[in-house]
Amino acid sequence: MISIKKPTLVLNSGICHENIRAMAAKAAECGVIFRPHFKTHQSAAIGEWFRTEGVTAITVSSVSMAGYFATNGWNDITIAFPVNLCEIDEINQLAAGIHLNLLIESVRTANFLVEKLTAECGFFIKIDTGYHRTGIAVSNVALIEAVLRNAVSPFLHFKGFLTHSGNAYHAKDLNELKQIQQFTAENLLRLKKHFLPQFPDLILSVGDTPTCSQLPVPEGIDEIRPGNFVFFDVMQFALGSCRLEEIAVALVCPVVAMHPGRQEAVIYGGAVHLSKEQTYLFPDTQPVYGLVFACNGETWETDRLLGKVKSLSQEHGIIALTQEGCNLKPGDLVAILPVHSCLTASMMRFYISENGFEIDTMNL
Amino acid sequence: MISIKKPTLVLNSGICHENIRAMAAKAAECGVIFRPHFKTHQSAAIGEWFRTEGVTAITVSSVSMAGYFATNGWNDITIAFPVNLCEIDEINQLAAGIHLNLLIESVRTANFLVEKLTAECGFFIKIDTGYHRTGIAVSNVALIEAVLRNAVSPFLHFKGFLTHSGNAYHAKDLNELKQIQQFTAENLLRLKKHFLPQFPDLILSVGDTPTCSQLPVPEGIDEIRPGNFVFFDVMQFALGSCRLEEIAVALVCPVVAMHPGRQEAVIYGGAVHLSKEQTYLFPDTQPVYGLVFACNGETWETDRLLGKVKSLSQEHGIIALTQEGCNLKPGDLVAILPVHSCLTASMMRFYISENGFEIDTMNL
Repeated sequence: MISIKKPTLVLNSGICHENIRAMAAKAAECGVIFRPHFKTHQSAAIGEWFRTEGVTAITVSSVSMAGYFATNGWNDITIAFPVNLCEIDEINQLAAGIHLNLLIESVRTANFLVEKLTAECGFFIKIDTGYHRTGIAVSNVALIEAVLRNAVSPFLHFKGFLTHSGNAYHAKDLNELKQIQQFTAENLLRLKKHFLPQFPDLILSVGDTPTCSQLPVPEGIDEIRPGNFVFFDVMQFALGSCRLEEIAVALVCPVVAMHPGRQEAVIYGGAVHLSKEQTYLFPDTQPVYGLVFACNGETWETDRLLGKVKSLSQEHGIIALTQEGCNLKPGDLVAILPVHSCLTASMMRFYISENGFEIDTMNL
Repeated sequence: MISIKKPTLVLNSGICHENIRAMAAKAAECGVIFRPHFKTHQSAAIGEWFRTEGVTAITVSSVSMAGYFATNGWNDITIAFPVNLCEIDEINQLAAGIHLNLLIESVRTANFLVEKLTAECGFFIKIDTGYHRTGIAVSNVALIEAVLRNAVSPFLHFKGFLTHSGNAYHAKDLNELKQIQQFTAENLLRLKKHFLPQFPDLILSVGDTPTCSQLPVPEGIDEIRPGNFVFFDVMQFALGSCRLEEIAVALVCPVVAMHPGRQEAVIYGGAVHLSKEQTYLFPDTQPVYGLVFACNGETWETDRLLGKVKSLSQEHGIIALTQEGCNLKPGDLVAILPVHSCLTASMMRFYISENGFEIDTMNL
């Protein structure tokens, strides 16, 4: 029995292992490279659990994160983030020691790297297939060609095209998700066909948890990079990517006050623990910041919903209680499945496993 | 010149000192105790700046935070959060060494403390004057009396009534803010009058930054506990509590990609740095996650708006650019005034002052 006194992120390692195993099996079945995104857990210890599933190549979202995992024995890392020119020294240092892949999306960045790189790097061109966050529009072949013309250096090796269909998070149903995946695949395959004669080894890399969880990988895609699936969360549940029982982390929090008149509890656990990420659970019209379940300090019971987190301040959480939740008392512990496990894990900085082991992350 | 390579929280110590001086002067002018909330900065070093303004008593929002500041020489601390019964051992340890005030809002918690306290504590009864987050409804005199009847112990000393008018954050204009303040003051004064014969030393403690910044302290109030004013932020600017030039912290971030076609920049700087707190700036109908200004790495220029943060992922920020902002290039630095400085500071964990000194916080 773990003694929890304040907000603590508990990881169910059994669920987590199974999530990893299932995604690795899916990648193998579809015959694609599995290069999981490690930004969700940011933990060397959890990284080891991927190794036992045969994973040798990973994705991260910052140079610092690449440095952390390189120090922990990973030597094939894609930084799936536009190159931060300010960190060129750190990039050169890393690239001298491991196989590092960068993302380029402008001629300017290509020129900068040609001038400044001192060690060999792979690079992907970041393609925008509809999310409109980063990347070159998939239709803009002229700009892609310009980047390739400018990224010529003995230190730069073109690996292929990479996209993140973040718009999959806005799909209203499985049908819309399929349409997004199909649009992405068709357009990437057109690019592949166009550039393959010139670059016969180029690959197509995609990766978002909703698509990777819910659909088979389309023919012609070579690599997937999902990340969130390692823990899942309430947002993925709302999107249909997982069942509640597949969510591997919960923030365990003490109840500090009860307001039965308005069916609310106050917990010690707020925006600095859960993040202010919100989602909508059909048929509710109010957003939730987490789902609250019965907890015995080590595990949680997803068939005993005690309430929904309806608002968060810095350290306070307000829970709209179910009937059963109204029996809570100050001093009780509840388990909150987070809306966005990546943010919660990043803010909490370390986990306790269900048997009480502490698991460090790079943020510790 | 500070060399910033990745998201870094820069504190302008001159602005911060002036914010502290101004609020201390206001409290002195109104003849009230100034017990600032330290949850915003969470830094022993910044705490010292308050000491030079004569501050000897502080407010915090967790037992851990009380422990951190007690270790750093503060010996009069109110934990403005419902007592977390799970931390009774830590509370007893703290109360044995310093003057500690707790918040009680239920008979159950009163009974628990009577049974478990082993050192003297002051306590306030937390009163709800309309925010409906925590506290006993200001009209519920019967419950207040029940708490007082149950909180009888040689270790418990009743100090008075404490409220946080978080509803001040929803005031649409100064007039509505005045109404909220007036309602709070009138109702607290009624309680004071009722209980003063029995507790002649009881005090009334209020404190939220919008009210404390924009209005004089009403007659009969004894203590104010604002916190956010130390840094201010875009939310306070939107509420009319400060000018942009009074905001003391900015997250300095590198630009990593430009999308002139849609007048957007991508920065390295996301939800794990700024938090997902949003606010609305009249007349916009879309929320912002921060305001982006020109930056020379040490200071920022509030008369050169380069854009608004329109969305945040884990590490990415998307900026809707002004005309001037469109001249940015990858590798440039921008300064983002955060929407909620408390959350940004808590997540960033340390500051760099404008002359390059590192300032630790309890989260480091």
